[in-house]
Amino acid sequence: MPTIQRFNSQDPGFEQALRTLLAFDAEQDESIERVVHELLADIRHRGDEALLEHTRRLDRVQADSVAELEIPRSEWLAALNGLPKAQREALEQAAERVRRYHEHQRTESWSYTEADGSMLGQQITPLDRVGLYVPGGKAAYPSSVLMNAIPAKVAGVPEVVMVTPTPGGQRNPIVLAAAAIAGVDRAWAIGGAQAVGALAYGTASISPVDKIVGPGNAYVAAAKRRVFGIVGIDMIAGPSEILIIADGSTPADWVAMDLFSQAEHDELAQSILLCPDAAYLDAVHEAIERLLPQMARVDILRQSLSKRGALIQVSSLDEACEIANTIAPEHLEISTRDAEQWAKKIRHAGAIFLGAYTSESLGDYCAGPNHVLPTARTARFSSPLGVYDFQKRSSLISISRAGAQTLGRIASTLAHGESLQAHARSAEYRLDP
Amino acid sequence: MPTIQRFNSQDPGFEQALRTLLAFDAEQDESIERVVHELLADIRHRGDEALLEHTRRLDRVQADSVAELEIPRSEWLAALNGLPKAQREALEQAAERVRRYHEHQRTESWSYTEADGSMLGQQITPLDRVGLYVPGGKAAYPSSVLMNAIPAKVAGVPEVVMVTPTPGGQRNPIVLAAAAIAGVDRAWAIGGAQAVGALAYGTASISPVDKIVGPGNAYVAAAKRRVFGIVGIDMIAGPSEILIIADGSTPADWVAMDLFSQAEHDELAQSILLCPDAAYLDAVHEAIERLLPQMARVDILRQSLSKRGALIQVSSLDEACEIANTIAPEHLEISTRDAEQWAKKIRHAGAIFLGAYTSESLGDYCAGPNHVLPTARTARFSSPLGVYDFQKRSSLISISRAGAQTLGRIASTLAHGESLQAHARSAEYRLDP
Repeated sequence: MPTIQRFNSQDPGFEQALRTLLAFDAEQDESIERVVHELLADIRHRGDEALLEHTRRLDRVQADSVAELEIPRSEWLAALNGLPKAQREALEQAAERVRRYHEHQRTESWSYTEADGSMLGQQITPLDRVGLYVPGGKAAYPSSVLMNAIPAKVAGVPEVVMVTPTPGGQRNPIVLAAAAIAGVDRAWAIGGAQAVGALAYGTASISPVDKIVGPGNAYVAAAKRRVFGIVGIDMIAGPSEILIIADGSTPADWVAMDLFSQAEHDELAQSILLCPDAAYLDAVHEAIERLLPQMARVDILRQSLSKRGALIQVSSLDEACEIANTIAPEHLEISTRDAEQWAKKIRHAGAIFLGAYTSESLGDYCAGPNHVLPTARTARFSSPLGVYDFQKRSSLISISRAGAQTLGRIASTLAHGESLQAHARSAEYRLDP
Repeated sequence: MPTIQRFNSQDPGFEQALRTLLAFDAEQDESIERVVHELLADIRHRGDEALLEHTRRLDRVQADSVAELEIPRSEWLAALNGLPKAQREALEQAAERVRRYHEHQRTESWSYTEADGSMLGQQITPLDRVGLYVPGGKAAYPSSVLMNAIPAKVAGVPEVVMVTPTPGGQRNPIVLAAAAIAGVDRAWAIGGAQAVGALAYGTASISPVDKIVGPGNAYVAAAKRRVFGIVGIDMIAGPSEILIIADGSTPADWVAMDLFSQAEHDELAQSILLCPDAAYLDAVHEAIERLLPQMARVDILRQSLSKRGALIQVSSLDEACEIANTIAPEHLEISTRDAEQWAKKIRHAGAIFLGAYTSESLGDYCAGPNHVLPTARTARFSSPLGVYDFQKRSSLISISRAGAQTLGRIASTLAHGESLQAHARSAEYRLDP
């Protein structure tokens, strides 16, 4: 099997080959569904007791009460103070930039008054309480704590609570430090579907939240899907993807490493390069082969690139933009001259990285925008995680006596047309005699 | 059984009684789930052929091709021209007001440039193609066509396609007229889970959409839930609810009729009144008993009011606002003097109707705001349907060479902390030597 597949958009069968390359069926595993169904029902009915039992069984954490599982603020602060200086500064600088960017996303209430004195508007309020899931073990990313918690705090959510599994009692100090920097309010050492259940239904010790965000394994994802409607959830993320459009002006090694930076996440991550220049594709191909053996995650990279990666020769940058709109990628690097010009042609992408200096990794950590992005073509209809996910709107309607005369007649006519007599009479009562 | 239950918030056991009153478990019916699963799989694999078969079987509509099921624009225009003048004017005036209100919701792209020349922003784009489901038969509401289609068109969605079942071939002319007024682009006489499948997966004759909105029966709701992720969906609505806070200054008959206007929707609809004044509650109670026999939908009203309705005496309007925040109602009427003052205390509600002249029915049809609102306490975390549901955001990141020096160091430190070597090197490549 080649290290990475090559295609040409002019070849017969290219469309089918592209469809096959992109195909990813997020099969729901029935055995996981059953386990999660039972875990959630148990938490719902037995609350704290069930939460303690499953945490003992699954995370091997012995605790006599849920209060013991709360991670006290003193411990986060100790973690923060214990960080190497460079790491602490990097986290703080990243948090500051993420906060500054997200402040642009805050929506304000608005209203307008009509000539007859009626007022219409929209009142914006933050959610009361948000739960943030942070995976334990090797997938524990402090950057993910920043990216999930900061938009909620910028939105004005009074209480953001973090849950994170601590298998064998191992607590991750960088995650705790990130929680302190991001402004998280409370944290519990619980995880899995049982933590999702506790946040959704509430227990004697844990108040229910209004929304649950953050990444997790298949059990956590299944649990989030199931509690959706009782609480809000963010998206259920698929494997991460990058699409790079290049014109050949960026050093080939840079682009190869950008492809790696996606592929190193896991075997299912997808890295695709589109370029009209065959010689440049050869150069990137050569860079991939040369750099690959130096990489720590060489095995993951090999699997991801060979099965899900591709170097694709296109007929033009215009065609590359069309293909990008079909793929609706999570991450789109436009590594070309005049990148802004090509960005204007992009209708669907989670985040667009413009120009040779804008590697995706800068955006992942500290450029400012969120790194929680729509995957699996959902950028066609959804957006990066943002402040707007933690604010909601209530319509405001105040109709004056004069306004009720105009609107009452319209509403009465339409209500009778829909055979809704009480709707009509309720409007008619407001008409002056 | 009394016509409507009475409670007092000071009674012991009130909290439990309120919980019982609000409880509504949207059980998923396994037999419906199975049928929908098979229908969707069949549409996905056999496309047009399956769509025609199921439309013949379920709607008794004989057609040899899906093209025959398209409802031509000439037929909508004929329906529009055939409307009684008053009805046509009412629909057009309502549409105009809805359009004007929703134009305030449009979000614009934004960006800012930093001192080192880096640019950060958010690019806003409309969805490409939206599917609007409109129920057939007695639940066919032209107002719902306006409320779902207009925000999509205001957002700039180039193609809004409507599907609506036509059992026995009966097409509803008011729905077709509303589609013409709302700016719908194409319409098909198909419905049920098979129509949802056709919109989500696409068939030879019907292009796939990016989002499906609009109300439907249990089969349609189950199908929307299942295709979520392949396409976006709006919320899955529960039974409709109204909560009225009154201080006794609104005529009791008006408030009684406002309660009816919710209860007449169906047996599960919920109508609750909160008021500190016992005599006023008596007056509303008397009005309910007196007006009920005059109503066309008296049987639905009786069931809805007796099982799901309540008149609740509270200790103060402040307490009423607290209870409203717990209930997070779909519709909240603040039928008091100085309604604005109380509205400021409301954190969770789909729409807030202020003052005696603002009956919910004015908002349902023509005040301007959307009548598709979060039900079943989901106003805690979600919003009315709006233009923002048909726009999406892409992050824009353009880092200058100078910016890459600052950000590259931060990203490299954080990436090494997360053991993501390729992320780190991709940032480091951009550092000047």
